[in-house]
Amino acid sequence: MSHSASSSVHLHRDMPQIPVGILGATGTVGQRFIVLLSSHPWFVIQVLGASSRSAGKPYKDAVRWKQTTPIPSSVASMPVHDCVPEPFKDCKVVFSGLDSDVAGDIEAAFRAAELAVFSNAKNYRRDPNVPLIVPLVNPNHLSIIPQQQRVHLNPTSRAPQPLSRGFIVTNANCSTTGVIIPLAALERAFGPLESLMITTMQAISGAGYPGVPSLDILDNIVPYISGEEEKIEWETLKILGGITEEEIEAADGSGKTEKVKKFDMHTNSPLRVSAQCNRVPVIDGHTECVSVRFARRPPPSPQQVREALAAFTSEAQTLGCPSAPTKTIVVHEEPDRPQPRLDRYHQDGAGVNVGRVRQCPVFDVKFVVLSNNVSIGAATSSIINAEVAFLKGVVQA
Amino acid sequence: MSHSASSSVHLHRDMPQIPVGILGATGTVGQRFIVLLSSHPWFVIQVLGASSRSAGKPYKDAVRWKQTTPIPSSVASMPVHDCVPEPFKDCKVVFSGLDSDVAGDIEAAFRAAELAVFSNAKNYRRDPNVPLIVPLVNPNHLSIIPQQQRVHLNPTSRAPQPLSRGFIVTNANCSTTGVIIPLAALERAFGPLESLMITTMQAISGAGYPGVPSLDILDNIVPYISGEEEKIEWETLKILGGITEEEIEAADGSGKTEKVKKFDMHTNSPLRVSAQCNRVPVIDGHTECVSVRFARRPPPSPQQVREALAAFTSEAQTLGCPSAPTKTIVVHEEPDRPQPRLDRYHQDGAGVNVGRVRQCPVFDVKFVVLSNNVSIGAATSSIINAEVAFLKGVVQA
Amino acid sequence: MSHSASSSVHLHRDMPQIPVGILGATGTVGQRFIVLLSSHPWFVIQVLGASSRSAGKPYKDAVRWKQTTPIPSSVASMPVHDCVPEPFKDCKVVFSGLDSDVAGDIEAAFRAAELAVFSNAKNYRRDPNVPLIVPLVNPNHLSIIPQQQRVHLNPTSRAPQPLSRGFIVTNANCSTTGVIIPLAALERAFGPLESLMITTMQAISGAGYPGVPSLDILDNIVPYISGEEEKIEWETLKILGGITEEEIEAADGSGKTEKVKKFDMHTNSPLRVSAQCNRVPVIDGHTECVSVRFARRPPPSPQQVREALAAFTSEAQTLGCPSAPTKTIVVHEEPDRPQPRLDRYHQDGAGVNVGRVRQCPVFDVKFVVLSNNVSIGAATSSIINAEVAFLKGVVQA
Amino acid sequence: MSHSASSSVHLHRDMPQIPVGILGATGTVGQRFIVLLSSHPWFVIQVLGASSRSAGKPYKDAVRWKQTTPIPSSVASMPVHDCVPEPFKDCKVVFSGLDSDVAGDIEAAFRAAELAVFSNAKNYRRDPNVPLIVPLVNPNHLSIIPQQQRVHLNPTSRAPQPLSRGFIVTNANCSTTGVIIPLAALERAFGPLESLMITTMQAISGAGYPGVPSLDILDNIVPYISGEEEKIEWETLKILGGITEEEIEAADGSGKTEKVKKFDMHTNSPLRVSAQCNRVPVIDGHTECVSVRFARRPPPSPQQVREALAAFTSEAQTLGCPSAPTKTIVVHEEPDRPQPRLDRYHQDGAGVNVGRVRQCPVFDVKFVVLSNNVSIGAATSSIINAEVAFLKGVVQA
Repeated sequence: MSHSASSSVHLHRDMPQIPVGILGATGTVGQRFIVLLSSHPWFVIQVLGASSRSAGKPYKDAVRWKQTTPIPSSVASMPVHDCVPEPFKDCKVVFSGLDSDVAGDIEAAFRAAELAVFSNAKNYRRDPNVPLIVPLVNPNHLSIIPQQQRVHLNPTSRAPQPLSRGFIVTNANCSTTGVIIPLAALERAFGPLESLMITTMQAISGAGYPGVPSLDILDNIVPYISGEEEKIEWETLKILGGITEEEIEAADGSGKTEKVKKFDMHTNSPLRVSAQCNRVPVIDGHTECVSVRFARRPPPSPQQVREALAAFTSEAQTLGCPSAPTKTIVVHEEPDRPQPRLDRYHQDGAGVNVGRVRQCPVFDVKFVVLSNNVSIGAATSSIINAEVAFLKGVVQA
Repeated sequence: MSHSASSSVHLHRDMPQIPVGILGATGTVGQRFIVLLSSHPWFVIQVLGASSRSAGKPYKDAVRWKQTTPIPSSVASMPVHDCVPEPFKDCKVVFSGLDSDVAGDIEAAFRAAELAVFSNAKNYRRDPNVPLIVPLVNPNHLSIIPQQQRVHLNPTSRAPQPLSRGFIVTNANCSTTGVIIPLAALERAFGPLESLMITTMQAISGAGYPGVPSLDILDNIVPYISGEEEKIEWETLKILGGITEEEIEAADGSGKTEKVKKFDMHTNSPLRVSAQCNRVPVIDGHTECVSVRFARRPPPSPQQVREALAAFTSEAQTLGCPSAPTKTIVVHEEPDRPQPRLDRYHQDGAGVNVGRVRQCPVFDVKFVVLSNNVSIGAATSSIINAEVAFLKGVVQA
Repeated sequence: MSHSASSSVHLHRDMPQIPVGILGATGTVGQRFIVLLSSHPWFVIQVLGASSRSAGKPYKDAVRWKQTTPIPSSVASMPVHDCVPEPFKDCKVVFSGLDSDVAGDIEAAFRAAELAVFSNAKNYRRDPNVPLIVPLVNPNHLSIIPQQQRVHLNPTSRAPQPLSRGFIVTNANCSTTGVIIPLAALERAFGPLESLMITTMQAISGAGYPGVPSLDILDNIVPYISGEEEKIEWETLKILGGITEEEIEAADGSGKTEKVKKFDMHTNSPLRVSAQCNRVPVIDGHTECVSVRFARRPPPSPQQVREALAAFTSEAQTLGCPSAPTKTIVVHEEPDRPQPRLDRYHQDGAGVNVGRVRQCPVFDVKFVVLSNNVSIGAATSSIINAEVAFLKGVVQA
Repeated sequence: MSHSASSSVHLHRDMPQIPVGILGATGTVGQRFIVLLSSHPWFVIQVLGASSRSAGKPYKDAVRWKQTTPIPSSVASMPVHDCVPEPFKDCKVVFSGLDSDVAGDIEAAFRAAELAVFSNAKNYRRDPNVPLIVPLVNPNHLSIIPQQQRVHLNPTSRAPQPLSRGFIVTNANCSTTGVIIPLAALERAFGPLESLMITTMQAISGAGYPGVPSLDILDNIVPYISGEEEKIEWETLKILGGITEEEIEAADGSGKTEKVKKFDMHTNSPLRVSAQCNRVPVIDGHTECVSVRFARRPPPSPQQVREALAAFTSEAQTLGCPSAPTKTIVVHEEPDRPQPRLDRYHQDGAGVNVGRVRQCPVFDVKFVVLSNNVSIGAATSSIINAEVAFLKGVVQA
């Protein structure tokens, strides 16, 4: 499959070249970052970081490459560094594909070193000062960053001083990302949702490499993915909810008040979410069966839902992010689509597919969502998040 | 898998040998009937029926055998007959694995010829006088048979006369069968259900042979099975609902009234059911993610649900049906079970497996069901239905 | 995967646009022709032909589209025609993806109507006047065409007259194509081969759609593909052998002699070939384990074989065929490559992959070949064959 | 599949109950030993050994059970021991399913403690004093054991003294085992083989658990299994070859000579073997494409080969080993059999399947072999080896 040379490449020839680094560059997500960034119109891979086992080797000797395209020649001989801030100091953006068992400390250290970290790891998703951004849904949550920078003071300055360039932005879990895009489209068109039932059928690539043993999944389904249901149920609320401001007593003991931003977790209109997650023998592409109940009565018809989904345009696209899909949501009319094998690579996997929109006898409407978990569900989201951050001036070239 | 030599075989040595016939004997379901019946303690395969293309050939030459055990030697050389009643006239039971495009006429003809037909086809499932029986759930629906016999008069008798031995009993669609067994257990323990959300992941064997093309399902999910969702949503109501009696004016114009039995479709306590059906690359075994809301408030806890499921005993078992499972519902405690490849052949696939019983944030309780679609989901159900019919005297040996 | 916009597209902007037709346009191979030709620098799809069941419909309604990219918009609304020559009369080239049960008569009729047919069907592969061409191996066999045209007189001219523009060129069976490319490279470098043992593991897409039932291939191997072993054993000889000229008595009874071209079937240096063919659960990509014995003693070393394979350049590439691969044979050094899933889409599947070149304890050298059966193994070969024919003047634009 | 109640169980009711131990009891092969031995007519599982991580736990808590039947109740609560001889001292037989990285030392220690070890590990297969036995082929190689016992003196006795009861017997690699059974049948019927070409397609279960990552094998072939080709090429010679006796100078410096037994590695009639090994997405069952050349000219016909294979009876069967198959080699006549999914569980996987016996254009005859790698290819072989040892008096009950 081609993840290269989209037409957008040519539209941005005059863009400044922006040096970026990749943490966890030898892992599954790191390899995807490399494939995607090696043909990116703005971002230029400058530094690769991985575990100390790999550090010092040329990338091609450190990696067990599992992509369907060869290692980009521009990257093959790059040295791999330890995941410490020093070699990354000139990177305007650092993408993190680190495993969660090490991501916490490393990403914090990079932020403290005034680096802008766009992370695919789960560690900071629940942090009240870290935005959890699906770029086609809630890039406005970048507005929490100044508060994050005030909380995490620059450790190298003499007087306590907020960070000026360092921060962490996370993207969502792959199964959350797929389903939340059409859900956001529905809320935008028809107001708040009230209840959601989601059953997922998730690809093996979502578990990384070596990941799922073949003896566990060939001719089989595993009806359980550790922590996954909780992620969908919680992340949905943080992403779809807004940001509110509260006046609280200042921490400096002055008796003054200060304004604090807070993710409202959709509390203004409570939303109940129930997820059931399954691993299936599919290589790429998460399929999700969704049933929704709207707060508004009467609810929209299936046809209205179909139209709203097809019409949805993300801010990432409006801003001109080069990696954003032309069509955020492809609505299928055939009775048996979307299907992972046939639909996962459309638009290089940057959009999502919805089909089978129909009445639900219990809730209002039910439908099927397919998203590419290794593209929009992972590395592509981090990259579009960084693109948005540049276009909004949150990061300077 | 072994479908041979279960211990029950030896318990019934003194049982009379009952001659049975099989319609559609060369098809997928027909082959399963042959495997199961070739070692049955009571039933003896006496006549095989298939399309006229096969008629006249010895079975082994007519069939494209796809079972994992060889053709039973007792059957290999039997001649295949056309599906007409005459050669079956001494069969006490006729099992039908016919395709729905021919099952309608043939089964009606067999009933009219005073033969007891236990059918796996969908044609008569919605007939108001035909019982739709999942043998571990509602064998009491056999009580509709006398009314069916009154409606379908014996065409060979001079005066209009009800059928005396001929009737049709159907079993349910394979995906309905799997899920309805635990649902029946819950209704028995905790009273009526109010709402059900079901997402299925169904094995390819459910589509017969040649069935699903490999290009459609390898590394893929097909989120659609024609007519399947409607079957689950409708059959659930017929099976879980009771039978009521109404007094209506007699059809003979006498002005008298007569009592008529009616399937009540769970109308006494309305039940809403929504199903989403998917085909997955699994050979045997339908996995279903279920979320239920009970009518009763407060609802039972997950632990109470677990105990009620494990304690459920079917009438088929109490009666001593040789093909009924020892344990109707196996409740799994491991977080990642049941799984089709590991659990589908327990008890020769005659029971069902339930796991992951837990709180549902939207409804009351959610869980995962696994059933063997080619065993309890098809031929095994027909066979237990016939066993129940014998033990209740509906059919005489 | 991307089969679009290769860089070669841009190299040929000044090429004349050449109208082409596709026979069997709704089938598996026909769909591949459409994907590949919709972005071809020279060929422009002008007419689509399929069975009378499809004729008259717009293409998008006639086809059951199974490609991983959407139907090209330029083709979606084209009407489908019956497979008769009339609507194709302005096509310079007609590509045939017809099934073999109809290809014989239809292709003959098109040739008789002075159309140049490049066929993927097997019907004429053994015809002594029809070239069987793997474009990266033996495009020189086009030289048989004048003799073919003399044999198949133009039926519309008054006096017996050879065809002037009509002919049939076939490409090889997909499993032959993959293996014959490295074998040709070895013969070019080291002289004739003497013995070949080939065991194939062939993808399901080689059987078309619906093709292999999923119940036959999931968690399974089928160690048999009808007619396949004979094709490899026979086609190899025709393709690798040369063309000789014999003087024979003229058919006109004049007593004169005439020169006749004959495929020599490698008889100058007898070559024995033994193939064993298996179907495996792989979507695209035929893997073949090959062991070869050379006529020359001592034979080349594995390292010499590796270098000869990597250095091999096809005439198709030298001529500048836009669909020819940049690298005909990619030689892998990793111990566990090539693998179908990882390597089949390199160069849009137009080249072949060879790996594990090593000593054979019985013959001389053994290795593994991977080729994309739906690309170079089918439609891509026909297209390069037509490109060669243009560049050599066998067909005029 | 059935691992229960074969008829042979009932034939041996009077057999003494023989206590056995299992090393590596929690691993893949160890689990198979438990399934098979839990219903064995003679052997009674008495001690389980595994790594120190598991030691001290009840078996059901130590194991990650992956079999399709539940843990036998007789074993579930047994404590797991460290792999040291002491707790096994009353075992007449110790079966080893240990990984090769630890098998070497542990098995040697058990032998030194006078325990009879039947090992599935590769460590001692090349030892000149250890028999490598495929029980349906060369149980006569047990005759090397006295020499093994003389070489490995009893370490606890004061004066140097041979072992009296301790020894190691290995069984062959799973892919060797499958193919060697029909090869032995051919040599018995037609004299020595001269050349062999073997291409394997091996199931994932051959790699243990977690074994092959699903991302490596779904929709894929891996044309490489480390060390596997060498094993087939070497083990074939040791197993098919005989044992010769040489007179050599005694090691005691006495100047006397002593007779020494030696595996002759088929040197009396040199046999060349070439193997190509592939991993395929099949759960159980190795399929092997074989081509053979006989020393004798003219060679037997395919029909003679078929008959010789079908007629082959192993010594294990003649002796009355309860786990030996009734039919050592099932010869299939259908053109497309054997197939792993359909044929691997016949006779509980204790025999092998051969099909497609036909002329080879290069050698003499070619055919396809299917064997169950987890049954006759692993645990079942060790068990039959132990049964033979008992019946021949090499081990006393």
